[in-house]
Amino acid sequence: MKIAIDAMGGDHAPEVVIAGTEKARDHDADLEFILYGDEAKIKPLIHNQDRLTIVHTAEKINSDDEPVRAIRRKKQASMVLAAQAVKQGDATAMVSLGSTGALLAAGLFIIGRIKAIERPGLLPTLPTVDGKGFVMLDVGANAENRPYHLLQYAIMGSYYAKDVRGVDNPRVGLLNNGTEANKGDKLHQEAHDLLSAAPGINFVGNVESSDILNGPADVVVTDGFTGNATLKAIEGTVRTVMHMLKGAIYDGGVSGKLGGLFLKNNLKSMAQTFDISSYGGAVLLGLKAPLVKAHGAADADTVYYTLLQTAKMVKNGTVAKVVDYFDAHPEIAEAKTTDKAVDNDGGNK
Amino acid sequence: MKIAIDAMGGDHAPEVVIAGTEKARDHDADLEFILYGDEAKIKPLIHNQDRLTIVHTAEKINSDDEPVRAIRRKKQASMVLAAQAVKQGDATAMVSLGSTGALLAAGLFIIGRIKAIERPGLLPTLPTVDGKGFVMLDVGANAENRPYHLLQYAIMGSYYAKDVRGVDNPRVGLLNNGTEANKGDKLHQEAHDLLSAAPGINFVGNVESSDILNGPADVVVTDGFTGNATLKAIEGTVRTVMHMLKGAIYDGGVSGKLGGLFLKNNLKSMAQTFDISSYGGAVLLGLKAPLVKAHGAADADTVYYTLLQTAKMVKNGTVAKVVDYFDAHPEIAEAKTTDKAVDNDGGNK
Repeated sequence: MKIAIDAMGGDHAPEVVIAGTEKARDHDADLEFILYGDEAKIKPLIHNQDRLTIVHTAEKINSDDEPVRAIRRKKQASMVLAAQAVKQGDATAMVSLGSTGALLAAGLFIIGRIKAIERPGLLPTLPTVDGKGFVMLDVGANAENRPYHLLQYAIMGSYYAKDVRGVDNPRVGLLNNGTEANKGDKLHQEAHDLLSAAPGINFVGNVESSDILNGPADVVVTDGFTGNATLKAIEGTVRTVMHMLKGAIYDGGVSGKLGGLFLKNNLKSMAQTFDISSYGGAVLLGLKAPLVKAHGAADADTVYYTLLQTAKMVKNGTVAKVVDYFDAHPEIAEAKTTDKAVDNDGGNK
Repeated sequence: MKIAIDAMGGDHAPEVVIAGTEKARDHDADLEFILYGDEAKIKPLIHNQDRLTIVHTAEKINSDDEPVRAIRRKKQASMVLAAQAVKQGDATAMVSLGSTGALLAAGLFIIGRIKAIERPGLLPTLPTVDGKGFVMLDVGANAENRPYHLLQYAIMGSYYAKDVRGVDNPRVGLLNNGTEANKGDKLHQEAHDLLSAAPGINFVGNVESSDILNGPADVVVTDGFTGNATLKAIEGTVRTVMHMLKGAIYDGGVSGKLGGLFLKNNLKSMAQTFDISSYGGAVLLGLKAPLVKAHGAADADTVYYTLLQTAKMVKNGTVAKVVDYFDAHPEIAEAKTTDKAVDNDGGNK
């Protein structure tokens, strides 16, 4: 199994990318990697060339590049070459720490969508109080979604939770503004009806953003706009509370500092529980091959976990299972054609 | 100034309601209150009858009543009578700790909307790191909104921030899935254009839910669905992190407990910063009179602050200012009539 890696994406590239890749290579003898990037920078970092190929390119996409334009014009960028490798069958999956927008564009325009999935969705893994965690999609690949997109997310998210997270019969919840079945706007009311009727998913009803960290569902399904606001609210609030906690310790005089000293290890493990980047990368589900985005600030261990996560998707054939599901359920695949109002802009805003 | 109070709403009614009301009465000689509820329960709690009138009723709305039906059928409920008092001019504002849904229905169907405001919005005050706080609306009075509703929220929120929170030239931000001007779905792109062009507001552009606790805006404008998800995500995350922090202290053995002891006061003040209910009540803006909802779990001090907050709105004539604004800017009041797709269901879902 070959995984294409954009070695130049992220805040600490290529150092953390190479370190994480070598660790994954040493962990799993089935894995081979193609590293796209500046050979002069990459090569000195490598300890052991075994199952690592470097494809040199000097071009790369920056975080302030306009995503779609960057993908189209920077044809030799490390991210673009990695996506091309997947498209051409030289690799079976792709990982990058680069710009999310550019990566979504590379996924949609180079790797391409599964036929049945109109709007691929971005799926991160989030923490829960009991440490089990859950996945949520879409968190922002799309600014607008139709009800049947949310059904497609439920199906893809369920396969992902089973294959990659080892959850048996994953519980699917719909993020809504109340738990009762009739809650929400038309989008969410219709999505609730579609999810209730769909075969092969374990739909547990509506869930609220106030409760999702308690783990009422293994897969939380949401439109990209609400999912983005919810994910960012959780991340921002965790960051703010932890920041104020540090303030309470360090600006709290002697007793604050002493308290912090005694609590040090406990607070550290608590901070780790809420470090969303430690849960590996976010997957753009609905493409012809796995495309996984690790956080730009990821360290080598996060890159390592992201690569193992990606390999799990490949080994379990998660993408093929999604294709098979929609082949076996043409009534679901066709549900979308009854909705005329779709603005088919590729979902990249 | 007379304020109508639903004395029977909330988890600790009527005790905390009466205690908070007496405190507000003692604080401000201009205030008079009409208490609606069970006289046999209310009367023994009152220390001093000065400027307090009790209107007895045995009926009340419960938290599990279906809101619209409850408002229509329980015609003698304490909440309904308080709203009727405002409608008939016996009181100039209303406060309740009862069911949010029923209170929204009472506001819309009994007190009634300002002509220019099609969809009143619910506005709570949230904390910021610097302690100044901000207001956000709509957080769930509506499941769906149009772009011009968001403009109306910006105007109402600005008057509120000035009159009640004393913010000079309040900065208005649009909650969106990125800070660039072209971000979001059509609703938010169009709202951005309307906000950029509107006279009399200090629009600072898009803000993200990851950042709002840092205080980039004094008034955050959002559609009710996204605002609800964002508010609940913030509340749920604060609750979860604080819960885990307690766990780190109490399950952390001797060092955890010692650490907690040293940090006690600092953690307490931090918890208070994030206790959203301590920021008074949420106001349903867009009605003909102030209607303020305090948290069901509110204590007497929160009731007291909520009553002072309500009195400030009345004294400053905030409602009249909103009416005057739309009278003076007919082009904005008329913007809504160009949008044919409005489903005018009263905004109560």
